[in-house]
Amino acid sequence: MNQDYIIPNEWSIIEEGFEKDRVKSSESLFSIGNGAMGQRANFEEFYSGDTFQGSYIAGVYYPDKTKVGWWKNGYPEYFAKVLNAPVWIGIDIEINGEKLDLNTCEVNNFRRELNMKKGILDRSFHAILPSGLEIEVFVRRFLSADLDELGVIKYDIKPTNSDAKIVYKSYVDAAVKNEDANWEEIFWEPVNTEINNQQGFVQARTFKTHFEVVTFMENKILVNGSYQHINPISSFKTESKVEFTYKVEVKTNDTATIQKFGGYVISTNHAKNELINAAKNVLLQANEQGYEQLLINQKLAWAKTWEMSDITIDGDVEAQQGIRFNIFQLNQTYSGKDARLNIGPKGFTGEKYGGSTYWDTEAYCLPFYMATKNQEVARNLLMYRYNQLDKAIENGEKLGFKNGAALYPMVTMNGEECHNEWEITFEEIHRNAAIAFAIFNYTRFTGDQSYIPEAGLEVLLGIARFWQQRVNWSADKQQFVMLGVTGPNEYENNVNNNFHTSYCAQWCINYTLEQIENIKTNYPQDYERIVTKTSINAEELVAMKNVADNMYLPFSEEHDVYLQQDGFLDKDLTPVSELSKEDRPINQKWSWDRILRSAYIKQADVLQSFYYFEEDFSKEQLEKHFDFYEPLTVHESSLSPCVHSIQAATLGRMEQAYTFYLRTSRLDLDDYNKEVHEGLHITSMAGTWMSIVEGFGGMRVKNDALYFEPRLPEQWKGFSFKINFRHQILKVIVNKGETTFELEGTEPLEVYVFGEKSVVQPSI
Amino acid sequence: MNQDYIIPNEWSIIEEGFEKDRVKSSESLFSIGNGAMGQRANFEEFYSGDTFQGSYIAGVYYPDKTKVGWWKNGYPEYFAKVLNAPVWIGIDIEINGEKLDLNTCEVNNFRRELNMKKGILDRSFHAILPSGLEIEVFVRRFLSADLDELGVIKYDIKPTNSDAKIVYKSYVDAAVKNEDANWEEIFWEPVNTEINNQQGFVQARTFKTHFEVVTFMENKILVNGSYQHINPISSFKTESKVEFTYKVEVKTNDTATIQKFGGYVISTNHAKNELINAAKNVLLQANEQGYEQLLINQKLAWAKTWEMSDITIDGDVEAQQGIRFNIFQLNQTYSGKDARLNIGPKGFTGEKYGGSTYWDTEAYCLPFYMATKNQEVARNLLMYRYNQLDKAIENGEKLGFKNGAALYPMVTMNGEECHNEWEITFEEIHRNAAIAFAIFNYTRFTGDQSYIPEAGLEVLLGIARFWQQRVNWSADKQQFVMLGVTGPNEYENNVNNNFHTSYCAQWCINYTLEQIENIKTNYPQDYERIVTKTSINAEELVAMKNVADNMYLPFSEEHDVYLQQDGFLDKDLTPVSELSKEDRPINQKWSWDRILRSAYIKQADVLQSFYYFEEDFSKEQLEKHFDFYEPLTVHESSLSPCVHSIQAATLGRMEQAYTFYLRTSRLDLDDYNKEVHEGLHITSMAGTWMSIVEGFGGMRVKNDALYFEPRLPEQWKGFSFKINFRHQILKVIVNKGETTFELEGTEPLEVYVFGEKSVVQPSI
Repeated sequence: MNQDYIIPNEWSIIEEGFEKDRVKSSESLFSIGNGAMGQRANFEEFYSGDTFQGSYIAGVYYPDKTKVGWWKNGYPEYFAKVLNAPVWIGIDIEINGEKLDLNTCEVNNFRRELNMKKGILDRSFHAILPSGLEIEVFVRRFLSADLDELGVIKYDIKPTNSDAKIVYKSYVDAAVKNEDANWEEIFWEPVNTEINNQQGFVQARTFKTHFEVVTFMENKILVNGSYQHINPISSFKTESKVEFTYKVEVKTNDTATIQKFGGYVISTNHAKNELINAAKNVLLQANEQGYEQLLINQKLAWAKTWEMSDITIDGDVEAQQGIRFNIFQLNQTYSGKDARLNIGPKGFTGEKYGGSTYWDTEAYCLPFYMATKNQEVARNLLMYRYNQLDKAIENGEKLGFKNGAALYPMVTMNGEECHNEWEITFEEIHRNAAIAFAIFNYTRFTGDQSYIPEAGLEVLLGIARFWQQRVNWSADKQQFVMLGVTGPNEYENNVNNNFHTSYCAQWCINYTLEQIENIKTNYPQDYERIVTKTSINAEELVAMKNVADNMYLPFSEEHDVYLQQDGFLDKDLTPVSELSKEDRPINQKWSWDRILRSAYIKQADVLQSFYYFEEDFSKEQLEKHFDFYEPLTVHESSLSPCVHSIQAATLGRMEQAYTFYLRTSRLDLDDYNKEVHEGLHITSMAGTWMSIVEGFGGMRVKNDALYFEPRLPEQWKGFSFKINFRHQILKVIVNKGETTFELEGTEPLEVYVFGEKSVVQPSI
Repeated sequence: MNQDYIIPNEWSIIEEGFEKDRVKSSESLFSIGNGAMGQRANFEEFYSGDTFQGSYIAGVYYPDKTKVGWWKNGYPEYFAKVLNAPVWIGIDIEINGEKLDLNTCEVNNFRRELNMKKGILDRSFHAILPSGLEIEVFVRRFLSADLDELGVIKYDIKPTNSDAKIVYKSYVDAAVKNEDANWEEIFWEPVNTEINNQQGFVQARTFKTHFEVVTFMENKILVNGSYQHINPISSFKTESKVEFTYKVEVKTNDTATIQKFGGYVISTNHAKNELINAAKNVLLQANEQGYEQLLINQKLAWAKTWEMSDITIDGDVEAQQGIRFNIFQLNQTYSGKDARLNIGPKGFTGEKYGGSTYWDTEAYCLPFYMATKNQEVARNLLMYRYNQLDKAIENGEKLGFKNGAALYPMVTMNGEECHNEWEITFEEIHRNAAIAFAIFNYTRFTGDQSYIPEAGLEVLLGIARFWQQRVNWSADKQQFVMLGVTGPNEYENNVNNNFHTSYCAQWCINYTLEQIENIKTNYPQDYERIVTKTSINAEELVAMKNVADNMYLPFSEEHDVYLQQDGFLDKDLTPVSELSKEDRPINQKWSWDRILRSAYIKQADVLQSFYYFEEDFSKEQLEKHFDFYEPLTVHESSLSPCVHSIQAATLGRMEQAYTFYLRTSRLDLDDYNKEVHEGLHITSMAGTWMSIVEGFGGMRVKNDALYFEPRLPEQWKGFSFKINFRHQILKVIVNKGETTFELEGTEPLEVYVFGEKSVVQPSI
């Protein structure tokens, strides 16, 4: 474990004590979000120490041109930066003329608590200012889960050894920069600022993308809990900032409070010239409810979310805290309400990566949202790709593919490729298969047969066409080969015949052909529409089938395993366990060319196929491949341990499964990769959920029924999870030697436990 | 042919007629240089049309940080930009109050002539200004080959239909930018400007690298050829510019002339605080000689150069012009006087590439300088690498190599790697072999046995150590393999077991071991010194030998050829001749991933080994490999046609050899690659020289003797070239059916023509 200051607690993330060198890590760990916006746990008041300011708005990005001398054709035109948004939380504080700055005070009893059950962040401390003035501070902050354009702050100050004149300078400010800006560029252009009584508005526009955002606020002052009719003693606006200054005089041990409503309204949801009115409307709704009711509603909204998605672990507080932290962050990042949005790998907690949508969404996140939300949410994730099919076809055309071949981007905000590391952009094409697999997975899990005829088949066809064109015939091998790819293991690039990619391609084509037959037979009207739109013809389908039937898959007779790629056995196959500690992590300690030449695997690659297509392989094959590849795997991607945890559990290797589980579930809390200050690993958190449900729970869906093979790690007394299976909520409770079910619904449900069928009756 | 405006002439490059869209191409083609500085053929006077300003100083560069989000360990820290230097040529002109600007005048009789025999650039034209004033202009410019800090301009204006008040505004200016600057950065920081009578000085410093340069000038005014005692009517200096304004009133048909001496003195040759004095000293020397004498000396200096390096071609003016243009540019770029300098791929004619030293120097340029200059010049090229050995070892260490393993940089200014395209930087390691091969080649040609014991062996050892560490044992193949490389064919990357690289590695180790034995026996003192310095030990040498003896080289039994790399036969082997015209050049028409996956070869790769190590292979093997690889070769590197021309000639395929020759010798004059506006392909020009000497002349050195197999292309009546062979000058004259020799020296020389020995007596 690399970091251990987070106090174990079943429902909260807690930090006690103020340590300046933890500030940036805690800013990530205590981030809050509501699907539409997010906020790192930056202090409201001025802080002169090392901090990473971060406010984010879903869907708002900046296309950063990558300028390099060695530009090559087909190289993506821009990198979509996650944009640091204008600040709405700012409240600078002066007490008796002294600025409050935790970097210069003596700070005692510092405590943060992120209450995951309620979706509320609290911070409290006792400070002795340089003058000797002592104060107690309590700050509460939340982003409304209901009114997703609204954030709420309550900031209490109690002087304990003197009367005090407290000045609150509450502001919104669009003069923000990205920490990762290459050349100190500014991404926001101020448009307008407005003051309306106690309300302030800053309208700003992103350069190039021209998103417009109004960042707004309204403040109220309370003393000892009672609202005061205090107007600002001054207010000012510049072209990018509005600030109100309030002065409150209080006696020793009285509490002065500022309540701040703030947030964002954006031009993708409102007309640009209506943005300030929209902001006023949000404030109107917030005022109608008032702080206390907003707080109650926040708790209710989160209670509802937990009702569907909670996992309990009995007898292991750290594991319990870990899984809830993961579930909480996933729900903070993506609510599923808006089909235009998706799940960025850092959510709203940092700037790294950029873009919002990776194959993580389909391969790792979909199962979580599918099982813990209404079906519509999972369908929205699929529709996101359907809506971007034209762009995926264009993307294929840019690279020389034709006839409707779709290559979905490696990373995207709007369907366009926005990644700029070309060996991944061009080569890591297995992402296309993840998108097809998600359609299969969704259909298998939900039983929703309508998605494929209505939308999915067009996506499948575009993807199958891509694969057909991407292979070439090898006269030497007398099979189709797939040259120049990068698999999920990004510690290789430009390899030939990556097993995972080729196997996926073969599967995609076969699945597509199967679905074409299915739709032709069962949805003839849809079939007609699709044939007209896409010009499918019989000849093409024969050619596709030929590719699938004659796909080369590298295999070693000697080792009796599929090879990750051609030439893999030329590598030095010394296992990771024999590397010295100084060599780890290799992505920090080794040069890139040494990594590329090594056999070391970043994350499941061959084993990713065994995860997707488990039923295609015997348990003996899984074991053989697991034993061949896992010892060479360094798990330096946050997406690695979960797949291995599930497979270890499947193989009954519970100790190993548990180790992988802990590593994935507390990756950020314990900062295994020493990078939590940059933000959290959101998408891998869904993998943690899979580790429990599919790993320890052994849940699978086959032939429209749920199958379980529950296995309890030694360290746990029991665990439980819930699944929304086809509009009924099944709770699965695993204890030593016993698995019980509770069904919330109307119909009895067949489940299989270790192959044995039983029927669960609705009990609630 | 893509461009045909250059008028064929044996000794000159001539352009007639003014075409605005040719301006940038002509600026490249009419570039002048003297080894220390260079100047594109920009107009002296203001030009409002499309132009690419370029003045360059040898050895002065800027380390441009590459900022990308996906930085990887071992990635070079900067890219060395070739810097656009301050302007010394500027002379703006006003006549009767009207600015002279060829973009707004009617221009007639425009003519440029770059007289290669004399090293002089002339430009003349007749212009009708918007007012109707007609003038005749003649401008002469040269960069002194003797005083290599000096440039000279003579600018004549004759009004032909009116009297005229002519204003010359002559300036030096350090406020220049690079055309390829990523973010409009300024690379020069002004330090000081000074005016001293008619002399002006601008001192400027490069950011980061802190080179200091004084750009200077002095002007004189003449009327009808007589010096006038005219002082500037005004002069001014800003922080980065000095300008003098002269006014001359002349009658119709009188000629007003400004003579300008200018140039650069730099801090690598003079103390920084002595730079202005150094500049004054250059001007003093120039004034002592005077314009006319400088011109005479220029002609003499070039006559001396041509005396050694000229090649004549009889009966083919275009071929003659082509080869002289190549020889002229090579001599303009690198004089061999300064061992700190090297041969940049664009010389002083453009900004592209960056850095100065590629493997081009050893593989392509060394033979030219070795044969047409004194031995010291070639030795300086080798010493350049010896002097950078420590940096090459450091470079190896950065990538994880140890024990003195040297990896020479892909591109360098000072020994540090300064290339930023990592698949080339890390992978294109055959460059190391080019450096070892050059030592062998130099020793073979010059017979100078002293270089290896004095310096070369340390370089060879560092390189051999690198190869030993770079391979790994393949348990599968039971041989050593070389993973993750890029060969000379940069249309592949990260391939395994590139034949050229592995073959070179094997050769390097064997040659090094051989030389260690040789030095041990014949230069025991040097041997002792080197053993002490490098800690060679017997065990290490055994391990090295083991690598060389068990090196895997990919070979196809079916095709009976060595394979460019593992898996090459998986590719679609459709020959280039079957590509449609729209697909060519593929580096402009295809996406990069399509290029990588294709079998198409940018330049000689397997055939590069056959070029280096010709004697290791039979002619039948050469033919088989040539017939296998050439049809897949797109020759999109300027370094490609020369090797193929030589090999085609060796195989007696004269028509093909001639086609390749024309393509290389007139690559820029005819702008085959449609990029001459960016600058010339300097290093490939040495390949052109090789095409004649080694290709058509069939010259080889074996066992300390010269061998020739002269073959005359059908299109030529004859050709001749000269060789400085071990301090005697041999002229080889090839005519139909007859080869004759003239020897300038003191000793009779044995030569072999088609294997038949004859002895040439000194005749001069």
